[in-house]
This record gives sequence, C-alpha cells and structure tokens, in this order.
Amino acid sequence: MQDLTLVMAQLDPLVGDIPGNAERAIEAVREARIEHGADVVVFPELFLSGYPPEDLLLRPSMETRLREARARMASKVARDVLVIIGYPGRREGQGYNLAGALYNGEWLDEYAKQALPNYQVFDERRYFATGNRSLVLEHKGVRLGLLICEDLWDGAPVRAACEAGADVLITLNASPYHQDKPAERLRLLEQRAAEVERPVVYVNTIGGQDELVFDGGSACVDAGGELRVLAPYWQAGLMPVQFVREADRWVPREGEIEPSVDPEESLYCALVTGLRDYVNKSGFEGVVLGLSGGIDSALSLAIAVDALGAQRVQAVMMPYHYTADISRQDAAEQARLLGVHYQVLPIEPMVEAFMETLADTFAGTERDTTEENLQSRCRGVLLMAISNKKGLMVLSTGNKSEMAVGYATLYGDMVGGYNAIKDVYKSWVYRLARWRNTQSPAIPERVIERPPSAELAPDQKDTDSLPDYDVLDAILVRYIEGDMSAEAIIDAGFEREDVYRVVRLVDRNEYKRRQAAVGVRVTPRGFGRDRRYPIVNGWQPGE
Amino acid sequence: MQDLTLVMAQLDPLVGDIPGNAERAIEAVREARIEHGADVVVFPELFLSGYPPEDLLLRPSMETRLREARARMASKVARDVLVIIGYPGRREGQGYNLAGALYNGEWLDEYAKQALPNYQVFDERRYFATGNRSLVLEHKGVRLGLLICEDLWDGAPVRAACEAGADVLITLNASPYHQDKPAERLRLLEQRAAEVERPVVYVNTIGGQDELVFDGGSACVDAGGELRVLAPYWQAGLMPVQFVREADRWVPREGEIEPSVDPEESLYCALVTGLRDYVNKSGFEGVVLGLSGGIDSALSLAIAVDALGAQRVQAVMMPYHYTADISRQDAAEQARLLGVHYQVLPIEPMVEAFMETLADTFAGTERDTTEENLQSRCRGVLLMAISNKKGLMVLSTGNKSEMAVGYATLYGDMVGGYNAIKDVYKSWVYRLARWRNTQSPAIPERVIERPPSAELAPDQKDTDSLPDYDVLDAILVRYIEGDMSAEAIIDAGFEREDVYRVVRLVDRNEYKRRQAAVGVRVTPRGFGRDRRYPIVNGWQPGE
Repeated sequence: MQDLTLVMAQLDPLVGDIPGNAERAIEAVREARIEHGADVVVFPELFLSGYPPEDLLLRPSMETRLREARARMASKVARDVLVIIGYPGRREGQGYNLAGALYNGEWLDEYAKQALPNYQVFDERRYFATGNRSLVLEHKGVRLGLLICEDLWDGAPVRAACEAGADVLITLNASPYHQDKPAERLRLLEQRAAEVERPVVYVNTIGGQDELVFDGGSACVDAGGELRVLAPYWQAGLMPVQFVREADRWVPREGEIEPSVDPEESLYCALVTGLRDYVNKSGFEGVVLGLSGGIDSALSLAIAVDALGAQRVQAVMMPYHYTADISRQDAAEQARLLGVHYQVLPIEPMVEAFMETLADTFAGTERDTTEENLQSRCRGVLLMAISNKKGLMVLSTGNKSEMAVGYATLYGDMVGGYNAIKDVYKSWVYRLARWRNTQSPAIPERVIERPPSAELAPDQKDTDSLPDYDVLDAILVRYIEGDMSAEAIIDAGFEREDVYRVVRLVDRNEYKRRQAAVGVRVTPRGFGRDRRYPIVNGWQPGE
Repeated sequence: MQDLTLVMAQLDPLVGDIPGNAERAIEAVREARIEHGADVVVFPELFLSGYPPEDLLLRPSMETRLREARARMASKVARDVLVIIGYPGRREGQGYNLAGALYNGEWLDEYAKQALPNYQVFDERRYFATGNRSLVLEHKGVRLGLLICEDLWDGAPVRAACEAGADVLITLNASPYHQDKPAERLRLLEQRAAEVERPVVYVNTIGGQDELVFDGGSACVDAGGELRVLAPYWQAGLMPVQFVREADRWVPREGEIEPSVDPEESLYCALVTGLRDYVNKSGFEGVVLGLSGGIDSALSLAIAVDALGAQRVQAVMMPYHYTADISRQDAAEQARLLGVHYQVLPIEPMVEAFMETLADTFAGTERDTTEENLQSRCRGVLLMAISNKKGLMVLSTGNKSEMAVGYATLYGDMVGGYNAIKDVYKSWVYRLARWRNTQSPAIPERVIERPPSAELAPDQKDTDSLPDYDVLDAILVRYIEGDMSAEAIIDAGFEREDVYRVVRLVDRNEYKRRQAAVGVRVTPRGFGRDRRYPIVNGWQPGE
C-alpha cells in the first residue's frame, strides 16, 4: 500500500534571526525524519524571517541573509525528505511572500502568495507584490498544491491549485490568535476542503511576537471536510499526518485530535504565551509589577507566574493613605500563595516631597486628578527604578476597558514594557480570574468579589466616574469592535448619556494609548497596529 | 480674449471634522469668487475628511457624514463656479480616494485615485481600491483632467488623462513635507508637465496632523515645464492662477512666485507649524517644558514661542547636584530673552525620598544608570503635575539622534504630548539654533557653544557614551534613512566599533521609541508610522 508521512512543523521562529531560524528548521527536519520517518516536512509562513518581519523587509541585507540561510539549509537538511518552508524574497525587483521546496540539497521551485492581507494588523502590500500562479509539486506520487495563509481565506487560489492538478493542498500560515479565531479557522478549513474535495494540511506558527500571539492548532482535514488531525494549541512541536492511497485519492488517516477547551482557558493561554515569549525573546531576567490588591494586577501576577515561574516574578505593594487594609492583606496573601518575592514600599515620602515642591505653583488651586496622578506616577518611578537596577521588565496591568476610556495614568500605572491583559475587557478579567482559580488557588476570592477601585482618593470606586463595567464593556465592544455609531448603540438599548460619555472618552484618549506598552492582542481589534486612529481628531459622536 | 481664473485653495482641514471642513470649503469658495472672481476652485486631496483620516475611514457613519456634507455644499456653495474637492467615498462596496466636481448645486462626476501609496507613512491600500479611469471635465471651454497626488508621481494616470483629452491637468494633493521635499516636488511637476506638454495645477494641503506636516507650496507649471505660480509655503490661503487661450492652448499667466528659502528656514517653519497645529487643534492652553540649559530644550523653547507666543509657554528649570551653574544661568537668560513664565524647582527632595525608600532594595548594588534615570523621572513627574493642573501640554525635547540610540529616559525626559524636534538630528539642532539667532536673539550663544551633557552624573558629557555627534549622525543617516548594513557603513569609512555600537543601540531601543511622544516628521524616514520595526527582534548587525 502506498503511503506518505507528512510532518507539520508547528514551531516558533524568532523575528529577524534568519540564521537561527534556518538552524531551527534543519534540526526540526532531522527530528521529523528520526521520530516520524517524514517524507515531507512543512513549516509555517515566513518561517525564515519570522512573522511579521515588518520593515526589516526593507533592509537590502535581508536578501543576502536569506540567500545564505537557504544555502545552508540546502547543504545541511536531511536527504530524501521534501521540505516546504516560508520566507520572503525579492524576485526581479519585487518582494514576495514565498513558499520554497527543498529536496536532496536542491531548491526546486517557489510559490508566491496570491492574496495579500492589508487590513487589521496586516500590512502585506507594503512589502509584497501579488503572486499569480499556482504551484503543484509531485513527490512520491502525490501532487501537493501550495498555498499561503490568506490564499485559503480568499478562496480563488485554492480553486486554481486544484485546477492545476493538486491532490492535496498544503497551506503555510502565520495566523494570529484572537478570541474565537481557532474555531473560525477550523470551520473555514473544513469548508474549503469540502468545496474542492481535497484534503487540506494547515500548518500554523506558534508563539508570541510583540502584540501578536500565534496559537498553533495545525490541522489536517480530509476531502469531505472532516477533521483528521489537530495539533495542540499553545505548544510547539512536530505533528505527523499519515496519507494513504485509496483508489485514485490520497486520504489522511485519523490521527491525534486535540480536544477543544473552554474559551477562558484558550484566552488565558494566549496571555501566558504572549508574555512569556516577549520576556524570554527580549532576554529579561523576569518581571516586576505593582500589586495593588485589585483584580487587574492580581490576574497579571497569576499570568506572570504561569508564564515565567515564581522565581522570575517580583511584586511590589506601594500603599498610600487611600489604600484599604484589605488591599494590603490581599496583596500579601496572593504573593504568599504564589510564592513570589514581595515587598511593601509606601509612597507617602515621595508624594509629599512633590507636593511641597509644587506648593507655590499650585497655590490657590483645587485638588483634582493631578494629585491622583501623582500617586500613580510615584509608583511608576519606583517600579522603573527596581526594573533598571535588577534587569526586570515592568509588567503593566491596565485592562482594555481602562485603555479604551483612558482610565489610567500616563507614566504612572501605564509604565511598563509589556501588558498581558491590555486587550482583555474588565468583564473578561473577572472571568479569567475565576477560571484560573478553578485550576489552583491563585487569586484571593476577596479580590474578585470586592467592587473595583483605583484607590487614588478617599472611598473612590471606579463606578464614580464610569458606568458599571458590564455596561461599559457592552458599549465598548459595540463601538470598538463593532464600529457602531453612538446613535446606533443608543438604539440598541443603552443610555444616551453613558454612550456619549464613553465614546468621547475613547476618541479623546488615543494620545494615551499611543504611548502605552505593547500587549497581547486577543480581540479582532486590539489597540495597536490593529486600530490606527488619529490623535488630533475632530470626529464627534453622532449618527 | 478667452480666459479662466482658477483658485488654488491651499487650506488646512481638521481630520475627522467633516461638517467643519465642508463649512471651510463653502467659505473659501465664497471668498475665491469675491476676491478673485474664480471660475474654478480646487481643494486638496481628501479635504472633507482631512488627511490622513486613518481608521476613521472604517467607521460606517463616515459615509453618512460625507453624504450630508456634500449635500450641504451643493446647497450652499456659490453659483457659477466649478468646485473640485477631495473626499473619501464608498462606491459599490469599495472605498475610493475621490475628487468630486460640484457646479451650480450639482455634483457632476467623480474621479478615483489610480496610484495608491502604501509605503513610508502611507497606508492607502488599507482603505482604498484602485480607480481605473481618467476624468476630464469641460468647463468654459477648458478640458480639465483630474489627478490625485501619487497619480502624478506614478506617471501613467497623467498620460491617460492627456489621452482622454485634457488641456490642463489638475492635481489634488496631501503631500507631506520632509527636508528637500518641496524642491523634489517642483522638479517632478516641471518634468511631468514638459513630458505631456500640458500645464499642471498642483494644490497641496497645509498644516500639521499628528506626525505629518504639510507645507503647501501649491503651484502651476506651464506646458513647457516652466514654473508660473508658486503659493507660499507654511501659509494657508487662496492663490489665483489666470489661464488665457493662446491659439489652441490654454496658457497660465505668470503670477506670484514665492522665493525659495534656506533649508534651515524651511525646516524651522515645519517644526513651528507641526507644534502649533498639534497644540491648537488639540485645544491645549499652551505648553510647559523642562529647560535644562542644554541646546535641545533651548531650541524647543524658541520653536514653542514662535508657534504659540510667549504667553502660552512656560519653562521649568529643575536643577540637581550635577546641574552646572552655567546651565541655570543660561536657562534663566533664555526665559528672560523670550519673555516666558519661568520657575526653578530643585529635584533634590524627591530624588532623596526615592533613594531612601529604595535603600533596602538597592543595598549592596553599585550606582548605575538607575540613579540617573531617577533624576530624569522626577523631572518628568513635576512637568506632568504642572501639565495636569494647568492644562498645558508637556513639550518633549529629545532629538532624533537621541531617539535613535535610546539616549533618553522613558517616563523621564521622554515625557510629553508632542516633540517638535523628534525627527531632527543633533547636528541639525545646532544648525537650526544658529539660524534662529540670525533672525532675532532667542538662544544664548553659550548654550550653542558648550559641549552637550545630560548632566545626570558628575562632569558627564554625551561623548562619554556616544561617538561625537557628527560621526553619530553620519552613521545614523546611513543606517536609518539609507538602509545600509553595518558592514557597508564601515566600508564607507567609519570605525567598526562605532558602527556596531550605534547600530545595536538603534535596534535595541525600538521599545523606547514605541512609547515616545509623537512629533513632527521632517526626514524621509521618521520614527513613527514611517518606520515599522519589531520590538522583539533577533536581527544582528552584519552584512
């Protein structure tokens, strides 16, 4: 019986490290041969450059480095295995997003991506010209039709590859995660396979890169649109797919299928992966964060410990007059629970020193948010001093609801190199905290139960200046992800006053977001490359 | 004798303010009729939305607002004048960058931009589909061929418009400034006109929008490629062009031609315009900045005063042990010279309070940049407190050389809403300071003459940790604007050690730049939308 073993190399390249990524590929092919007897190994999209390489693609030496890396692969990659791998390349003066095929030391041919996404976080038309032909490679009697990521969503290149004679479709991907994306992607895969009546092998990247996080979930679907193999999410590795010849068709055998998980678990893993890869790929010793006794920093601490281990995480409680006793207790309790280094640094002396220095300047003025911001900024300066001295990255802990309405202090609690929960709405912060506690105790229950407060003024509650978080989040999702107008949101059943207040706050706080730390994107519209709004902006809420 | 008066409306729209921009257009047409007897009035590219509207274009209500604005224009614009104006629009499900023609209350036709820039700061393919036909409008016997901005650079749409019968080419533009751009643009204009033997009318936007600044310089070139009219740079206004019929051709009469200026003056005006528009369009009362006695803050102060007037500018000297006496003297002297509010706030009490609070945490460690950053951050917190209390925007004052190598403190001297000199290399900071003093005394000479120092440690000089600024800038220009590799820069005659140090610093400091204030872009590659580099980046200097 004829058969063919294809290995999906669901791996994590490092953006910009072209020689290193080539070594990773060489090693993976070796392992795929030894462990799985691979006939074909498929890597993700732009594996040699990492994804997204952004303006590194404009450096002329990128081309030299890629040529050298491919030459090294040709001389070092195991024999008798077809390797299909993604990389960028200039051909006849134009840049392309390519998939190349290497066999027995020879680069056989290249496929150029035909559908180039230039929306959301994607800028591919900034770098690439459009490919215009299908590529079908025959290997051990199987005709493999190559596709790259958006080609599958677009559809036309899929049909073209089949017309060009493909038995099996192979798609190389760097498909970033957002909530619900894994299921959406599987549905598409099943639909396309059924449409063209061909098995589809889908190889995705894994790992975090700046604000993007790739969930893996590489898969194979048969010609009937049935899922046959599904690699784990959030885990790098090699996953084999066995094809057998049945009559005139190549059929994938049923293999391992990763069970599906709760939406909370999926999201939590995304945050852990994003943070871990940012910290490790940047070479930080660990992280330090301000632990306030509130839920945002509590969840962030749990994520940091899950991402890096307790030894690499330090928590600092920085109390002031308005810090409740239960905040101090809960922060200490959580630090003990998770076993992280913990210290208490009261900020009174610094706040007082600033207020005395500013006494003349502020004479005759009322107390306002200035004094609140000052507390927050003293905390930021303390965290940065510890960061500088100890080589720990400051973890910023503002959630998406706060980032949206500017309920955060620039250079205060916004200080930090990375924010694990930047794209997580407050209502999801609660859901994640509760879910995390079902795995093992990580967050004191009182932190989850008490009403949220920034504790920057006496008896302050977040709801003094914002609608309840469930209302706030419902308005924000409609405005940010749904692009609904203020009037349309009101028509959907929200209070006019709430909607206008929220929408104005979102529009006016672009300047703060522009200076915010990067963080994991987990929604279809994160505050980053994904949402490009002007700061100076005369747009008014309305129809 | 047949003639035709065309008025170039070189005006400054407010991004997002669609109804306001329509009113600006209605008023300008009225004035063009009364003052100049205009037969035709031409506005810049995307005038109704402002440029660049960015993701506001993705809001469904953008279309409603544009429809209302165009309806209002149709009912209010003066009769008997052809109005050509730029705006975005969805047509048959796709977005286009359009130029519409309005005459006697009726919108006649629309031209869709054919060449869509998607490089540097431009993301037009994110929003727009490509137009595919020329539009020639006949008005009072003249056939006007419409073009939009990149169409002229591309060339093909220019030839197509002529083949479609245009006598005169009209191009609507939002062409941002960078150094040497005005001359480059005029050369292109002259070349294209001569190529197709048609007069070209070029109408540009004026004013600042976030990091972009538009210099104006609207112009008319005759069919021989000769400049006949050139509107002022850096000044909004209406500029008439008289066409007369000679034999079978329409010829522009010689009109006003703005004399050319020094490169220093051009650049200085760009910085003043960018800052003024950011502050005014954002509705700030004025600005506050830290005046250190060094040249960066001294130049920034001069720019701020020229942009906003002395009454709207406050300077704060925040000395510490390492602040030289001459720094205090020079700061005070400049504040007196320019007549700005000035105060001295020593930072010792705050720095000491932080160091005491951190004494246990830092026990047994060496003094390092932590203590330097702490000084800088105390200054940042003071400035932000004044900003919050008084509604003044903090002006950030780091130059491009510092932004490039990360010689700046996050949340310290990088604090601020806007940075006028963000894209100005240190060597140009000196040139601008000297030039500014030729106009009127604004910067004490000693500030320009003394060696630069951050004054964060005893007897510190910038050159302790960086190459001389002329060498540094020469390397930076080659690496950033020239995309040269480290080895290529060494081959061009620089020291290997300097080059590798500088290039590594540039690559490693993307995280700081990502959180920096926006500022005026004045080079062909500013740190902003223009240069999209990954933060996590395995790229190593080399070939």
